This record gives sequence, structure tokens and C-alpha cells, in this order.
Amino acid sequence: MKSDIEIAQAAEPWPIEKVAAAADFQPEEVLPYGREKAKIERKEPVDRDQFGKLVLVTSINPTPAGEGKSTVAVGLADAMQQAGQRTMLALREPSLGPVMGMKGGATGGGYSQVIPMDDINLHFTGDFHALTVAQNTLVALIDNSIYQGNPLNLDPRQIIVKRVLDVNDRDLRHIVIGLGGRTSGVPREGSFEITAASEMMAILTLSTDLADLKRRINRIVVGYTYDRQPVTVAELGVGGALATLLKDAILPNLVQTISHTPALIHGGPFANIAQGTNSIQATQLALQQADYTVTEAGFGADLGGEKFLDVKTPLLGKHPDAIVVVATVRALKMHGGLAKDQLDHEDLDALHKGLANLGRHLHSMKRYGIPVVVAVNRFTNDTEAELQMVVDYSNEHDVPAYPADVWGQGGNGARELAAGVIAAADQPANFTPLYEPTDDVETKLNRIVTQIYGGQGVELEPKAQKQLRQLVDQGWDHLPVIVAKTQYSLTDDAKRLGAPTDFKIHIREFVPKLGAGFIVAMAGSILTMPGLPKHPAAEKIEITDDGTISGLY
Amino acid sequence: MKSDIEIAQAAEPWPIEKVAAAADFQPEEVLPYGREKAKIERKEPVDRDQFGKLVLVTSINPTPAGEGKSTVAVGLADAMQQAGQRTMLALREPSLGPVMGMKGGATGGGYSQVIPMDDINLHFTGDFHALTVAQNTLVALIDNSIYQGNPLNLDPRQIIVKRVLDVNDRDLRHIVIGLGGRTSGVPREGSFEITAASEMMAILTLSTDLADLKRRINRIVVGYTYDRQPVTVAELGVGGALATLLKDAILPNLVQTISHTPALIHGGPFANIAQGTNSIQATQLALQQADYTVTEAGFGADLGGEKFLDVKTPLLGKHPDAIVVVATVRALKMHGGLAKDQLDHEDLDALHKGLANLGRHLHSMKRYGIPVVVAVNRFTNDTEAELQMVVDYSNEHDVPAYPADVWGQGGNGARELAAGVIAAADQPANFTPLYEPTDDVETKLNRIVTQIYGGQGVELEPKAQKQLRQLVDQGWDHLPVIVAKTQYSLTDDAKRLGAPTDFKIHIREFVPKLGAGFIVAMAGSILTMPGLPKHPAAEKIEITDDGTISGLY
Repeated sequence: MKSDIEIAQAAEPWPIEKVAAAADFQPEEVLPYGREKAKIERKEPVDRDQFGKLVLVTSINPTPAGEGKSTVAVGLADAMQQAGQRTMLALREPSLGPVMGMKGGATGGGYSQVIPMDDINLHFTGDFHALTVAQNTLVALIDNSIYQGNPLNLDPRQIIVKRVLDVNDRDLRHIVIGLGGRTSGVPREGSFEITAASEMMAILTLSTDLADLKRRINRIVVGYTYDRQPVTVAELGVGGALATLLKDAILPNLVQTISHTPALIHGGPFANIAQGTNSIQATQLALQQADYTVTEAGFGADLGGEKFLDVKTPLLGKHPDAIVVVATVRALKMHGGLAKDQLDHEDLDALHKGLANLGRHLHSMKRYGIPVVVAVNRFTNDTEAELQMVVDYSNEHDVPAYPADVWGQGGNGARELAAGVIAAADQPANFTPLYEPTDDVETKLNRIVTQIYGGQGVELEPKAQKQLRQLVDQGWDHLPVIVAKTQYSLTDDAKRLGAPTDFKIHIREFVPKLGAGFIVAMAGSILTMPGLPKHPAAEKIEITDDGTISGLY
Repeated sequence: MKSDIEIAQAAEPWPIEKVAAAADFQPEEVLPYGREKAKIERKEPVDRDQFGKLVLVTSINPTPAGEGKSTVAVGLADAMQQAGQRTMLALREPSLGPVMGMKGGATGGGYSQVIPMDDINLHFTGDFHALTVAQNTLVALIDNSIYQGNPLNLDPRQIIVKRVLDVNDRDLRHIVIGLGGRTSGVPREGSFEITAASEMMAILTLSTDLADLKRRINRIVVGYTYDRQPVTVAELGVGGALATLLKDAILPNLVQTISHTPALIHGGPFANIAQGTNSIQATQLALQQADYTVTEAGFGADLGGEKFLDVKTPLLGKHPDAIVVVATVRALKMHGGLAKDQLDHEDLDALHKGLANLGRHLHSMKRYGIPVVVAVNRFTNDTEAELQMVVDYSNEHDVPAYPADVWGQGGNGARELAAGVIAAADQPANFTPLYEPTDDVETKLNRIVTQIYGGQGVELEPKAQKQLRQLVDQGWDHLPVIVAKTQYSLTDDAKRLGAPTDFKIHIREFVPKLGAGFIVAMAGSILTMPGLPKHPAAEKIEITDDGTISGLY
């Protein structure tokens, strides 16, 4: 059996100019990056009246068994394109750190991949690197301001922006910087996050244009003065330089699937610490060019799904016309109590138990008033009885469900799913937001916990209570709330699978991200800098003397 | 008067495909990065029999008055091209950190610039960012190995590779990492350097192809075991992954001057801590395509010049056919004792004193048996008497000298210089290396100090003496030596300008860079991570809503 990278390398990509022309981009809009990648520079503002339909792909809570959300999104788009619909993908860029750590890029798999998979998983067009430099330049400028006499009266103990790397590097989570005497800075505690977790990433992906990007960068709260007043980038006077560093990164990237369906891949914020979806600009561009745009949101429907609908949708000016919830028999059996090494045999009891997790997400997504479809991503060992049980369960919840073999067959394996999604998107929607911007922070949090996670409500720990009062004092409580919690569970305990209901979500602290335009509510101990495993994927990656890569997943 | 960026923005660049075609690159060798940049991918090995002539541009010791070496290199190449010679530039990529700190990119100035100057000074084609990720991935893998049980018995106090950022960030010079308890790494002292100072950068620029790159990466000594045995990347088993991260960065970048002379700009190692020249691959490619290749080396002839001739030349398989030493009246007057605010008026006494610095470099460069030419880079306030004094002084040393107004007139301002350089390159050369590889480290150092710097010899401090014995024990003493010293003086004291002779160079420590293939001898306190000034250039950089940049130098 061929590996993902072997399949991708055997594909016959169109020149990117041909992909662009097929997607109705004008030649002057296309900035090539090599033969198979391009950035798209559109000068005119988007015209929302021309928007096509939007399909959001989300999933059950992920498990180590894998749910294959990106793979389904790619296969679904290929199937819709092959069914004669003008279709475009709008996906996130993978983060390089995890590619070198745990195997698993984010370019789909098997015969449902976007290509060139190696480039996309490595440096792509440099967007993450530009963000890394912009964020690090900002923090260096802050520390330099403190060093050069501290004219803004910044409290070194209250700097809240962090340096970043697109590397999994746990040793940089907690560090002390500025040691070495008078000429080498001012000592303080510091920290690095992974680039995907940075506020710069959230800002880039939520900006509607360069002017909006500049405004947002200038609004970033970098920290507080000794008398607890917030200090912004505007006060540092470096918003122009930081926006300049992102002038190319803000342009969406065009690639193709193995079957030549155009794909805009742009931005990659995490779905716990940030909104977890691709950029507003790329999504709007796709909506304008295509009749159907297939997009996805990070982690499960509780994290990326909710954030897409409550945070991105208002800025996008367009709600999804259909929501696809991806599930696999294997992952559902893990939610039903099986371990990863017990999944290869039929187990209808475990599957039945685990279906509660799917049920919770169907309930949550239907709540928004948008038609929902289940995609059952087929794996080799799935039995017909198991697949049928997922379909029956979904149908009992008034949701159509379609098994799809996108890994093995690409778009051909998702014909029925595509027809079902097109039918769903043709149904009338009655989009109902979860909360109003004017609701207070606790109301927003309680809605998310009770209506989306299925829990009993939210509890603020003492530090968070105190911070909430400060948020209200600053007038920041009208912003949307981003819950940063584990992706593995509906609760804030990664080990509680299935669909618990007897839980509250405990908010440890709030982090204002004024540039991104949201308040992050930290539930439990969320790591914003991953570590490497005992045997990192880097140990398997090789390149031949003539440049052929192997071992990249 | 227009600023550099305004002149660059007003230029009318050719599409990069046209530049490539004019330089005889085949269409299939050209990988475009936007409209005005490309990477060149040549499949066939270079043919040294086809090499054209090579002109090395170097300079006196730099001063705050500016010597304009890159500007002269660009203007000279334009003048040679306009004189009907097939000419190509082979230059270094600028480091982004200093662009945000002190004003001053590295793309020339006035009407002698390579374009697009903003892109080249910012992210260009991402080479520095790929190097940053490769170096940081390596160090993260090392710390992870220690964290995961330390199978290689690495001593956390003896890790010699450092993380890097392409940001001026003094607070990262001396840090403590791995704090925060059992799950966040193993505490140790750490440090960040600027990317240009990294061994990855030195390796990329000295590699002849991808196979050589892999070999060199695997040879990097990352640190030592508790019993003082060196540990290499090969033992970590991640050389393939690191080479994969550099698969695009190793390809030379093609751009053009304002006058459409083709320019390969590739790699940017510092000339103190590393060899300070552009890549072997780009230089060889230029030599193969053009009749004249104009290249430069960082800082003065004592640093970049010596390293080009003793470290790069043997790997390149080609020595320069002519060496151009750039001087300015203003800088020479500073070497003669004037302060920066005293340079606007004629001062023949100070100039006469300062000419000793030029004399030293002429002596050093002539020593290699290669014809030498002086380029006097004209500034507005230079008087004819001052210019004539520099010309006369050079001629007395049997070196032709030509004033050139490259800033104000581009190639037109360097016609006589170009004719003189072409004439010099036609003279027979008798290249005489400074030392043999088999010479011991102290012999190499003494040759550099006495014959290039004009000093009395070298003195090893106790730590360096001890390290030298270890170098010999490991069999590493046959490698070339890179002296890391201040660029401002021939001595290791930045304040001693002119041409002192009563000095020794004090070596504080040695750093083996086995991947790059040299031993660094640290003289004095060389900073490998710059800081930001009180008013960083970032405060002046702006971008309009439609993407026009200002304030970038």
C-alpha cells in the first residue's frame, strides 16, 4: 500500500496557472510560488451578493484513532467538483512543529489530498514564518523599550504577549530571559508558544484586508503598566512595521487537490486557544469564485465548530449552508470505552455507547438552525453492521448519514455524501447565533457549556473572577469568548470521553486578545507549546540526493 | 532627494522570466516567487571549465560613515553589463533583524540597487526562515533527547549549538530554559543567536549540493557527553529531516538590479562568526552563466576578504581574478581620527592619516597574488583634492584607483572603475594561499594576524589553550580557522582605527563547527545576537492600505 506522500508524489499536478484559470482567477491576480503554489492578490473588495454556498466540515471529539476531517473535506470537495459543481476548498495551513513531532500533517490522506503535500506541510509560502518574525519582533521591541529606560512604564511581570516558534519545544514554555548583566536586557520570566497559538495568527486570519490588519495589530494589548493600565502596540508605535512584515502573508494561497479541485489554504490558528479556522479573506475569495466552498474548523464541533459559528461567521458575513459532522467507527468505539488496540474487531456494544458523542455534536450543530449531515469516514476494518448502526443512529436524530471511502477512492468514494451535502445546503437555514455580543462574559460561557458541550455551566476560579472584573472595567466584556479547553473531551478533562452531562467547565484565567477581538477563557491546563514525543517524526524523514522526500506524513 | 525605497519603487523591473532568459537560464530551471523573484534549480553539476572571471568586492574597515560596499558592487556590475560584458552579481541576502533595528538593508543604495528591495530586505524567498526552523528544530530535538531519558548521555552544560531568530533580541542572549517542573523540559542555560550567525547558515552557503548539505549537517557537533566526547547530528538521527527543511533554501535566488543586470542573492552568513560570503552554489552558477561575476564579502578585507580567499576559494574551485577594495573619503577621515560629525569639510591631514587603513588592506590583498583595484565611493561633500589624494596614495602602492558615483548615477557613475576592473582581471594572477590545511591552528592564526591584520601575532587565553589541545586530540586542527573579531578595527579592540601594528589578537575560546568545516576563534567579546537601538527602524516603517511601504532602508 502506498503512503500518503508516495500517492502525492505520483499525482500529476496542473501548473498553478491552469488551476487558477479554471477557478476564474485573472492572470494578474496570481503570484506564483514555484510551479504548484500561488498567492492570490485581489484588488477589488469582495461582493457578498456573489457568494456561493458554504459547507462547514467539523467532527466528533478527536481520538488517537483518527477521524480524518481534512481527508473528508478534500474528498467531499473532489466529489462535488466531479458532480459538476464549481467547488473550492478553503482550508487551514498545517503547523510545521507537529509535522516534525507526531506524524500527521494536515493535507488530507490517501487519494483525498491537497498537493504539493510536502511543501504545504513544510514551509509552504512562508506565512507561518512571517507571523513568527512579526510576533517575535513585537516582543523584542517591548523588551527593548523596557531596556532603553521603559518610557511606557511597562511592568516586566505583566507582559502578556509571548515569543513564538513553529517548533515543538517544551523547554521554551517557562524560561528566564535578560540574564547576563547590564548590556543583555532586563531579566524577567518569559515563554514561547507555537506560532499557530499566537495572537498574530488569530489576527491575520480574522482580518478582512490590510487596513483591518493594521488596526487589529495596533489594538494588541502587550501587557500592563506598574499601575495596571493596558499598553497597546499603538503606544509602542510599531504597528506599521509589524503589518509590513505580514504584507505577503495576508494573501491567500492557492493549490489543488490530487483531482485538481482548487484549494485556498490560508492561516492556521489552533481551535483551542484561537478560532481554529482558515482566514476570512480566503473563505470570502472562495465564496465569490465558487458555487460551493468546503471549509473546516479545527478539532471537534465543540471547539472549532462553535467558534466558526460564533466568532468567524459574523465577520465573514455568511453562515454555513450545511454542516458536515465527520465520525469514524473506530473513534466512536473509543468514545464507547475501547482502547486503541481493541478497534480492529466489530464491537457493536462499544459503538452504541460511543454514539452518544456524535449525538451531542449533532444536537449542538442543529441548534444553530443549519442543516446537518454526518460523514462516516470508512476504515478498512469497519463492518457493514457497524456502518449501518452509525447511519441508523444519525437518521433517528433526523440527520442523513453517508459512509464515504475518501482515503481509498478520493472523490469517487464520496459521491453519495456529496449529493447529500448538496441537498442539505439547498434546504432553508434559519441561522440562530448562540449569544449576542452584548451578553456578558459569563452568559456567553454558560451558553457554550450548556448548549454546546452538554454540561451544567461554568465555574470561574478566583483568579478568573478577579480578571473578569478587570475585563468589565476596561469595557472588553462585549467581545466574543474563546474557550481554550482539551479537544479530546466535551469536558475540561481529556480522559472523559463519550458524552458526559454531569460536569462544569472550570475557567482558570482570562487572556484578552484585543487585536484578534476576543477574550480567551482558559479551561484546565492548555499547553500552547507542544513537546516532542520519545521518537519524533523527524527521525523518519529522509531526503535523497536528488530531493525526493520520504517519511513525511 | 528620493529615498532608496522610493527609487527602488519607481524602477521598472523586468518580469523575472525575462531576467532569467537574458541570463541564459532555461525556463524549466526557473521557479518564480511572485513576479520579480525566482529560485534557480539546475539539475546538472557545474562545469568549472566554463567559469567566467570572478571579481571580489571588499573594503577598508567599516565605520559609521559608511563605505557602501554593496552599492559599489551593484554599480560596478551595472557598468560592466552596460559596457557589453555578460555580467552577473552574486551577493548575500540581508538579515531581517538589523533591518528592523538600525537603518540599513543590504541591497545597495540610490541608483545602484537590487530590486525588489523591500522583499529582499524582508522575507525574500524564505531562506533565512527555513534556516531558523532547521536550527531550532535541531536544538529542540537535542533538548527532547535529554528530556526523554538522555540516551546519548548529553551534558546539558555542554550543548554548543544555539537556537536562533532573525530578530535583534538582546534579551535572548543569556537565558535559562526548561523551567516549570517535570513536564516542561530539563533546566539548563541557553542562548539565542541571530540566524545569520548559525552554523546552519554557514553550512547552507558552503554546500555544493544537497548531498553535501546532508553530509555537513550530519557532521555538526551539537555538544559533549558527560565524559567529554563529542556528539553529532548523525548520532541523533535527524540529519535527513533537517536537510529536508532546507531543500528549497539551498536553491539560489535570482533578482535584478534597477538596470536589469541579473543578480543571484543567496545566503547571508556573518563575516565575523562565519565566512561572510554568499553561497558556493550561487557563485558557481553565476560563474558558469556570465563572463564576469561580481561578488562581495562581509565587513572589511581583514574579515570577509581573508575568509573568501582562505575558506571559500578552495571549495569554490576558483579564486578571484581581481579584488576591488572599496573606500570612502569620509570613512578614511574617521580612520584618521575625525568624529562622525566632522566629516563634511575637506581635511587632507585626517585623510592622509586614515589612508594607512586602506594601505594595510591593499598590502593584505596583494599578498594573495591577485590584481587589486581601489574603488572610491563618492559622497556629495568629497572634494577633488581629497579624491585625488586617495587615487595618488593607491597608485603609489601600485594599485589603480577610480572614484565612482554609483549612488547618484548607477552604472554610469562607474564606467572608469569598470574598465579598470576588467583590465585588472585580464592580468595574470598567481594565487598564493595564506596557509595550508595541514598547518596547525596557531600557525594559521599567526599568519592571519601578521600578514592580514598587520599585528604581532596571536595570544591564546587559558581557556582557548585548553580547547586547542582538545581540538588536536579530536583531529580537528586541520580545518580552516575563522577569526571572530570586531569589524571596526584591524585589532580586537573596536576603538583602534587606522592601521596599528603594535598589537596581538587575543583568542578567548574556540568553537568547532564541523558541519561548516571550520574552527571559530573568538577574539574579544563578539556578540552573535545584536540588540535594538533606542529608536529602532521599526518605528519609522509604515505601509499604506494599498500596500506601499515607506521608511525601509
